[in-house]
Amino acid sequence: MRRFIIDCDTAEDDIFSFLFLLHKGVQVEGITIVEGNVPFDVEVQNALWASEFGSKYFNSTVKVYPGTTRPLVKGFRTVENVHGSGGVGSTKLRPTTKPEKKHAVDFILETADRYPGELEFLAISPLTNLALAYLKDKSLVEKVKAVWVMGGTIYGRGNITPAAEYNFWVDPDSAKIVLNAGFNLTMVSWDLITQYTVNEEWDRIKDMKTVMSELYLEFYSHYRGFAMSKQKMKGNPHPDLITTAVALNPSIATRVERQSVDVENCDCLTRGATVIDYLNVLGREPNVNVVYEIDRGLFISELMSLLSRF
Amino acid sequence: MRRFIIDCDTAEDDIFSFLFLLHKGVQVEGITIVEGNVPFDVEVQNALWASEFGSKYFNSTVKVYPGTTRPLVKGFRTVENVHGSGGVGSTKLRPTTKPEKKHAVDFILETADRYPGELEFLAISPLTNLALAYLKDKSLVEKVKAVWVMGGTIYGRGNITPAAEYNFWVDPDSAKIVLNAGFNLTMVSWDLITQYTVNEEWDRIKDMKTVMSELYLEFYSHYRGFAMSKQKMKGNPHPDLITTAVALNPSIATRVERQSVDVENCDCLTRGATVIDYLNVLGREPNVNVVYEIDRGLFISELMSLLSRF
Amino acid sequence: MRRFIIDCDTAEDDIFSFLFLLHKGVQVEGITIVEGNVPFDVEVQNALWASEFGSKYFNSTVKVYPGTTRPLVKGFRTVENVHGSGGVGSTKLRPTTKPEKKHAVDFILETADRYPGELEFLAISPLTNLALAYLKDKSLVEKVKAVWVMGGTIYGRGNITPAAEYNFWVDPDSAKIVLNAGFNLTMVSWDLITQYTVNEEWDRIKDMKTVMSELYLEFYSHYRGFAMSKQKMKGNPHPDLITTAVALNPSIATRVERQSVDVENCDCLTRGATVIDYLNVLGREPNVNVVYEIDRGLFISELMSLLSRF
Amino acid sequence: MRRFIIDCDTAEDDIFSFLFLLHKGVQVEGITIVEGNVPFDVEVQNALWASEFGSKYFNSTVKVYPGTTRPLVKGFRTVENVHGSGGVGSTKLRPTTKPEKKHAVDFILETADRYPGELEFLAISPLTNLALAYLKDKSLVEKVKAVWVMGGTIYGRGNITPAAEYNFWVDPDSAKIVLNAGFNLTMVSWDLITQYTVNEEWDRIKDMKTVMSELYLEFYSHYRGFAMSKQKMKGNPHPDLITTAVALNPSIATRVERQSVDVENCDCLTRGATVIDYLNVLGREPNVNVVYEIDRGLFISELMSLLSRF
Repeated sequence: MRRFIIDCDTAEDDIFSFLFLLHKGVQVEGITIVEGNVPFDVEVQNALWASEFGSKYFNSTVKVYPGTTRPLVKGFRTVENVHGSGGVGSTKLRPTTKPEKKHAVDFILETADRYPGELEFLAISPLTNLALAYLKDKSLVEKVKAVWVMGGTIYGRGNITPAAEYNFWVDPDSAKIVLNAGFNLTMVSWDLITQYTVNEEWDRIKDMKTVMSELYLEFYSHYRGFAMSKQKMKGNPHPDLITTAVALNPSIATRVERQSVDVENCDCLTRGATVIDYLNVLGREPNVNVVYEIDRGLFISELMSLLSRF
Repeated sequence: MRRFIIDCDTAEDDIFSFLFLLHKGVQVEGITIVEGNVPFDVEVQNALWASEFGSKYFNSTVKVYPGTTRPLVKGFRTVENVHGSGGVGSTKLRPTTKPEKKHAVDFILETADRYPGELEFLAISPLTNLALAYLKDKSLVEKVKAVWVMGGTIYGRGNITPAAEYNFWVDPDSAKIVLNAGFNLTMVSWDLITQYTVNEEWDRIKDMKTVMSELYLEFYSHYRGFAMSKQKMKGNPHPDLITTAVALNPSIATRVERQSVDVENCDCLTRGATVIDYLNVLGREPNVNVVYEIDRGLFISELMSLLSRF
Repeated sequence: MRRFIIDCDTAEDDIFSFLFLLHKGVQVEGITIVEGNVPFDVEVQNALWASEFGSKYFNSTVKVYPGTTRPLVKGFRTVENVHGSGGVGSTKLRPTTKPEKKHAVDFILETADRYPGELEFLAISPLTNLALAYLKDKSLVEKVKAVWVMGGTIYGRGNITPAAEYNFWVDPDSAKIVLNAGFNLTMVSWDLITQYTVNEEWDRIKDMKTVMSELYLEFYSHYRGFAMSKQKMKGNPHPDLITTAVALNPSIATRVERQSVDVENCDCLTRGATVIDYLNVLGREPNVNVVYEIDRGLFISELMSLLSRF
Repeated sequence: MRRFIIDCDTAEDDIFSFLFLLHKGVQVEGITIVEGNVPFDVEVQNALWASEFGSKYFNSTVKVYPGTTRPLVKGFRTVENVHGSGGVGSTKLRPTTKPEKKHAVDFILETADRYPGELEFLAISPLTNLALAYLKDKSLVEKVKAVWVMGGTIYGRGNITPAAEYNFWVDPDSAKIVLNAGFNLTMVSWDLITQYTVNEEWDRIKDMKTVMSELYLEFYSHYRGFAMSKQKMKGNPHPDLITTAVALNPSIATRVERQSVDVENCDCLTRGATVIDYLNVLGREPNVNVVYEIDRGLFISELMSLLSRF
C-alpha cells in the first residue's frame, strides 16, 4: 500500500487531487498546509472541508496539519484572481472540524520516521514545508521514497510572471533547496500541463449529474474562466491533478527525462525561473525526473472515473 | 536600395552573413566589430578578410570599424571551443588591409545621421556597440529604420548557460538597453534557429565544388562538429545567416509575434535570460517582433543560391 | 533569576561567554549549536567540553542541543584560519558526554513556551537556529524577552569580506528574518568590539596563574595572533564576550540607539552587509537597539573577575 | 598650468566649485554635464549661467558640453528636495548663451588627446560621462593625469539610501567601471565631508556683503535648511567644493590612504554602496586614494578667500 502526504495551498485542484488519492485507494497519512494560492486560513478551511467530504464519501479520515504561513525569506502574494476568493470560486467552504496542533514540519518528519522508504510526498504547492523539514533533518532525503512536485516550467513560460511558475515563484529559495537536496523527485511543470486542459469534456461533465461532477463544475468554474480569458487556454488546466495522476500512475507520463534542474532565487525579473541544463553545460549530476509528455487520453479517463464515482 | 550596417563578432556565420548581404545587392555601409566569439583582434582580422573577399568577388568595398572590446559592465568569455581558435575553425585569416580609425559608435551615429529613416542595423553579436551609440544619442532610435537581432531565446533554452543565449549573456545590460530603447526591432532567437540546421544538405554542398561552397565547408566544419557533438543538433546551425535572411526577406519568417520582451541582467544563474511576456502579465507595451517560425525551404534555397554564386 | 539560551558556533569566545553566564549566576537553559566558525562536530564537541567544565567548576549542568548545520539558503565557509582547527587554537577538545537528541529548534520553542516572557536568547553566532524556530512558530517573538546578537557592523567595516561581518555573512537570510521579526533585539557589532580588545592586559593575565587565566591564554592565543597580524588590532577581540557582558549588564553599553536595521541578502559583493537607516530615509520603524559604545573599564574588570574565579 | 574638465550635475555646490577653479587661476577646459541632482536641462542652464558669471567676473570663457542624460543601465531620480527645484534653491537661472553641440564624451576624449598627461577630471557628479568615454577609448586612463571624485562613503553611511551616497547610487555601474579602470583617482566621500560643514561661519558670511557672499547665501540657503533639518548636520555641507579644494591643493587632505575600493552595483538594498577592503581580505591591488581627513581651517579660509574675491 502506498502512503502519501499531500501538501496543499488548498484551492480547487488541490481538493480534487486529494479526492483522487482517496478514489485510488492509497493511504493518505495527512494533509499539510503551506502558504500559497489563498489566505492561509482559507486554505486550512478548504482542506478540512475536503477531509470531511473524504470521510463522508470515501470513508477515510485524514487529518490536516497547518505548516508555514510564509516563504523562507521572500515576500509573496496570494492569487484569488485565479482561484476565486474562496479558492474554489467565491464560495467559502465551512467545515466543522479543526486542524491538528502538530506543525506540518513535525508531522512530515515523524511520518517519514515511521515509514522509512515508504512515504511519498505530493507537493502541489510552494515547497516551504518540505524545505523546512529538510533543513531540520537532512536524513529526510533517505527516508522519503518519492517527491512529486507540481512546479516550474520546462520551456521558460510561467504564469505569475513571464518567467516563473507560481509555486516556484512564491518560494524560490525553498524550491532551490528541495531540488538540490537529493530527493527522488519528479517535476510536472506549468507549461507542460497547459497542453492538457479539459476542453470540450466540460460539456460531457455537465451531463454527468453525479455528486462529484457537480462539485467539479462548481469548484472549477472560476478557474476555467480565468484560464480561458487570461491565459490563452482552451479549457481549465489541472496542474495538481495531473501531478497526482502521474504520481499514482507513472505510466501516464509518456516522456520523462532525468536532468539537472535549478531555480533562480534572486530578487529579480526572473525570480523563480526554472533552469534546466538540457545540454549539461554546467556539468552537474541530474537531480530531477522532468515530465515532458503525458497520455492525455489516460488522464482524462482517470478524471472521468473520479467524477463518476458518486 | 536598402542600407545596412552589419555588427559582427566575426566568426564563420558572421562572414557568410556579410557575403549574403553583398550577394543580395544591398548597400553595406560598414562592418562594425564588437566583443564576442573570439579575441577582438581575430574578429577584426576576420572582418577585414571578409571585406577583401567581398571586394574581389562582389566588387564592393566595405570598411571595418572596430568598436567596443568589452561589455558595458560585466565580464564575459570568448568561445573558441565553438568556433575554433580562428573563429572559422583553427585557420587564422590574414588580410592585408587595415581597419578604420573611426570608432564603431561614431560610425553608427554618423551613418544614421546621413541616412535618417533608411539605415538598418544587423546585430548578429552582443549589443554593446548599439547600446553605446544609443546612450550617446537617443535620437538614433528615430533615425534607424530597423534593427535585426540574433539573440535570446523564445523557450528559455540557451547555449552558453542553460538559460541564456550567448549574445544576450555576454552583455545583458546592453541587450536590455537596446530592447527597451524603442527601436523597430526583430529578434531571431537561438532556440528558433536550432530547428533549422543544415543537415544532409552538407553532402550536397560537398558536391558543389564552387569557391563559395568550398569556403563554406572549410569555415563551418569546426562549428558543425561542435553543434552535432555537444549541442544535440542534427547539423550546423546558422544563427546569424538566418537572421540576415529574415532581414533581407522578411517573408522567410512565417510566424512573427509582437511581444513585450526583456532581458535578465542580474549577476546570477539566469544572467542574460530572455523574458517574453507571452500572457502580458506585466502590462507593458510590446517592443519586439519575435520570430517563431521560418520557411526552411526558402532559407535553404537562399543559402544554396549564395553557395553557387561563384 | 534570568534564563538564557546561548546559541554557539563554539570557538574560544563562545566558551568563555558560556562560562561568563555561569560565573554571573544566571540560569543557562541550554546550549544550542549552529553552523559557523568550525566544522559542526567540532562545535558540538567544544560545547560539550564547556558544559563538562561548567559542571566541574560552576556546579551547573547544561545540555547541548545541536541545531542546523547549514544556512537557510546559501553556502558558507568555516574559519579555522581565525580560530584554529579546534576552534580554541589547534587543540581538539575531548568531552566524554553526548549531545541531546532534541533539535535546537524544538528546544528553543519548548523553552520559550515553558518560560514565556522570561527567556533571553544570546546569539553569538549565525542566526539560522533562531530564524528556523521563528519560521516554525511566529509567536516566539512574543515569548522571548530579549535577543542579544553579536553580528553586523555599525560603520560598514566587516571581517569575512570588506563589507560584512562573519555571522551576518554566513546566513544573511536568517539575519534579515530575525532582525525584521519584531524581537526585542540588541546588536553588538564587529566594528564596535574591535575598539575594545584585550591589549596589554594580556601580560597581566599571564601573571594570574589561575585555572581560568591559564585556560584563557591557551584558548585565545591563536585568535590573538590572527587579530593582531591580519586584522590590524592591538590585541585579541571579544565579540561574543562583550555581547554577553552587555546582555548580563546592559549598563556596560554606554551609548545605544534604537534604529532601523536591515541586512543585504543578495548573492553579491555586499552579501551580509548591515544597513542602518541612521537618517531614517526609508521611513521604517526602528527595530534594533544598536550599541555604539561600551564602558571598557567595566568590561575588562568583568573579564578579570571571571579569570580570577578559580 | 593645470588643466581641468569639471563634470557637473549642476546645483549650488557645482557652481561654486567651478568658480573656485576660476578663482584659483587654473585652466578650465570645459564644463561637462551629466544626469544627477536636477532635471538635465536645469543642469545645463545652471552651468551656462555659471559660465556667463565666470566670464563677467573672472574674465574666463568656458564652454558647456552636455553629456549623457541617464545612467548606463539603471533608473535614477533627481533630488530637488535637496537642492531646490532650480538646483540653487527655487530660483531658475536664466543664461543667454547656448551649450555646445559636441557631446561631453567626445569633448573629454579630444581634450585628453590634446593634453596627454596634463588633463585632470573633476567629477563631482555621477560618473556616467567618464565611464562612457573610457568604454569608448580605454587609452583615456593613460592620458588623464588625475581624477578627483566626489562620491561614495568611507564608513558605510549614505544619503540617498542608508547605504549609498547619491553619485555612486545614481550610476553604480559607471562608478564601478571608473574605479576599476586604473585612473589615478582620489575619492572624497559623503561621510567625510559631513564632518566639515559651514556652521557658525554662515553668520560671518552674512556680514561680508560681497557679490560672492551674497550669491553664496542665496544659492546655499535651501541646501543648508535641508542638511540641518533632515540630515542631522550642523550646517551646510560642501561635498563638491571640498573635493575641488582637495584637487586644487592636495595638502588640504591631511590623511589619505591608498586602498582597494569597489562599488555594489546590484539592484538591491545596498545599490551603490562603497566597499573598501580596509583589511585587504580580497587581495586586490589598491586602486583609490581615499581621503580620511581634511584641514578644516584651511578649507574654510579658502572658502572665505573665494567669497571675498568680489
